[in-house]
Amino acid sequence: MRELRRGVVDLVREEELLGRLREGRPLRVKCGFDPTAPDLHLGHVVILTKMRQFQDFGHEVIFLIGDFTGMIGDPSGRSKARPTLTEDALQQNAATYAEQVHGVLDPELTRVEFNSKWMNDLSAADLVRLAGKRTLARMLERDDFRKRFGEGNPIGLHEFMYPIAQGYDSVALEADVELGGTDQTFNLLLGRQIQAEHGQPSQIVMTLPLLEGTDGVQKMSKSLGNHIAIMDPPAEMYGKLMSVSDELMWRYLELLSLRSQAELDKLRSGVAGGGNPRDAKMSLAHELTARFHGEGAAARAAEDFARRHRRGEMPDEMPEVSLVGRDGGLPVAEMVRRAGLANTNGEAMRLIAQGAVRLDGERVTDRSLLVEAGVTRILQVGKRRFARVTIAGT
Amino acid sequence: MRELRRGVVDLVREEELLGRLREGRPLRVKCGFDPTAPDLHLGHVVILTKMRQFQDFGHEVIFLIGDFTGMIGDPSGRSKARPTLTEDALQQNAATYAEQVHGVLDPELTRVEFNSKWMNDLSAADLVRLAGKRTLARMLERDDFRKRFGEGNPIGLHEFMYPIAQGYDSVALEADVELGGTDQTFNLLLGRQIQAEHGQPSQIVMTLPLLEGTDGVQKMSKSLGNHIAIMDPPAEMYGKLMSVSDELMWRYLELLSLRSQAELDKLRSGVAGGGNPRDAKMSLAHELTARFHGEGAAARAAEDFARRHRRGEMPDEMPEVSLVGRDGGLPVAEMVRRAGLANTNGEAMRLIAQGAVRLDGERVTDRSLLVEAGVTRILQVGKRRFARVTIAGT
Repeated sequence: MRELRRGVVDLVREEELLGRLREGRPLRVKCGFDPTAPDLHLGHVVILTKMRQFQDFGHEVIFLIGDFTGMIGDPSGRSKARPTLTEDALQQNAATYAEQVHGVLDPELTRVEFNSKWMNDLSAADLVRLAGKRTLARMLERDDFRKRFGEGNPIGLHEFMYPIAQGYDSVALEADVELGGTDQTFNLLLGRQIQAEHGQPSQIVMTLPLLEGTDGVQKMSKSLGNHIAIMDPPAEMYGKLMSVSDELMWRYLELLSLRSQAELDKLRSGVAGGGNPRDAKMSLAHELTARFHGEGAAARAAEDFARRHRRGEMPDEMPEVSLVGRDGGLPVAEMVRRAGLANTNGEAMRLIAQGAVRLDGERVTDRSLLVEAGVTRILQVGKRRFARVTIAGT
Repeated sequence: MRELRRGVVDLVREEELLGRLREGRPLRVKCGFDPTAPDLHLGHVVILTKMRQFQDFGHEVIFLIGDFTGMIGDPSGRSKARPTLTEDALQQNAATYAEQVHGVLDPELTRVEFNSKWMNDLSAADLVRLAGKRTLARMLERDDFRKRFGEGNPIGLHEFMYPIAQGYDSVALEADVELGGTDQTFNLLLGRQIQAEHGQPSQIVMTLPLLEGTDGVQKMSKSLGNHIAIMDPPAEMYGKLMSVSDELMWRYLELLSLRSQAELDKLRSGVAGGGNPRDAKMSLAHELTARFHGEGAAARAAEDFARRHRRGEMPDEMPEVSLVGRDGGLPVAEMVRRAGLANTNGEAMRLIAQGAVRLDGERVTDRSLLVEAGVTRILQVGKRRFARVTIAGT
């Protein structure tokens, strides 16, 4: 139970979960995924990791792809982010999901479902009946609805139907537990009500935090460029993980590692007793890289990283610099100047020409290199001057 | 066109109606009726009369029974007024409708439809698509929604679906025109949009006033008791119509008579030139009684009415009195006193004992008579003292 509670924000209700665990049968643990965004990053892995924990305890995990909403798209036509999905695109996305999550979930114990299976059989009358149990006032309690309504931003009526559909999914699946991010709390609790209306015991709701990105501040998101994608090549994933602050490293370990809480406690007390936090960070980077790319690739990424940093003797603490880029990045010389490692662009150019500038331990040879925005890089000039630089996109 | 415009409040849009009339084909004229309230009164006849006018001009009139919503009932369970209808109850109600409206509509030219015919085939996905074109803000423009929302009264989400279903009915029927009360304007205009979204020309919207009841003030309604039901026996219908004020008589003639505007103009100029408005009122009472009960019954009701009033020499103008009753009415003696025709209840009792008190021309013999609330009655004491008394229910 301590493992199942690890990292959890809301648990409604703990005594119910304990009761069902005592029944000794495998629980049906549901988690919904958006069919339009199959490019997963470590933010998603927080929930996948929780799903895996349930699997490790012998429960049945349902990876639910919400294709019903995907096939409808956004009927208001306002959102370009939600185009109507074809059957082909959907199958493609599902395959992509499967490829990405196999490192976390046990495929044998994972049941993949599409909610169109039952939602397509639902009639307009059924949906009206489901809708009729809810009031407008109750729906406007949801944070984002209330905010948009308060600001006078349009809310399409269909948007009220989607949480209801999600709740009905729990009925169709007879879910015992539903997992989601903290932004899903309202929807998950609605599922409890809708199950009760259908004479089912209400699912246990378990929410998990929205993981901070590599900047340690904002929520991990592809559009903010502070993400670590599951599909990132091994060296990139390893390097990005090595670039996070010590504080964030502990957070990632808690939410992403499959190691037991006891092991993590040991790691933490080791560092508190004078151990190098860098070793803990390497173990995190290794564990995650190995999970998605295999043990061999992780070992190569670690070696490569060490080789590149050997000469540099990279310190554990260094200045953090955030720069606003343009056209998706910054020329490397400008980056050096604005990071405070050269006084002029001209000086920066000369340092590059001398071979004194490194990015993530790799010598920069191209003076016109454009450094891409979005990723945190370790910038080094000479042997001793370092900065951890994040370029924000424009 | 002058006849079609008669009594109409909103016409959206007149030029479109003119255009379709010019096509020379029969237009499909739709009007929806609530499947749970088959007890029609003259307030409903306003719309039926307009439907009849369209029939007289050769158009196809669709009497649409909204059984889809009736079969769902009120899923929120808040309204007892909207129980779920069984198939049997529905057929029963439809038969009752048919019986009542045959006096106004030409059965040969009337197409009766149930919207469950197409609504039962509509899927939840279809409904979500229809809902998605509307925003919450737009729905809250509807007067009653805005009011209830402003007052913090609950609005069930299904209530937003019903106007959408009504709009979709227009698509299914390819309606050219939809008729409704002024309280239906929002829904009827929504039908225009939903048709346009389905590539159909938008229906013409025609709203008609909510008819005043016999008190001449409030909307005719069974619950207010100021109504004249289609199923009222001939003498009662005739008498109630004779009890209305002259002003209300003209209003009823405009909205309920099948006589042409030219005939009504003639009637009005006759009265203006010194004719007795009582004759016009008799013609109204006769026309409507004959429509629902046949010519013979109307003639008998007229004779009966005249006989009862012969002795009384009832004046055309008399004081109008409104009294608040209790327990659904008032004891007749108290009615006499409070109408100002006796100073004490004791005096009223004596007048009754002397046979000096009449109600609608009929001598009152029972001193303990309880006069029912809701209907306007002509109260008479002796030969010359009259009052038109309305007892409001409590």
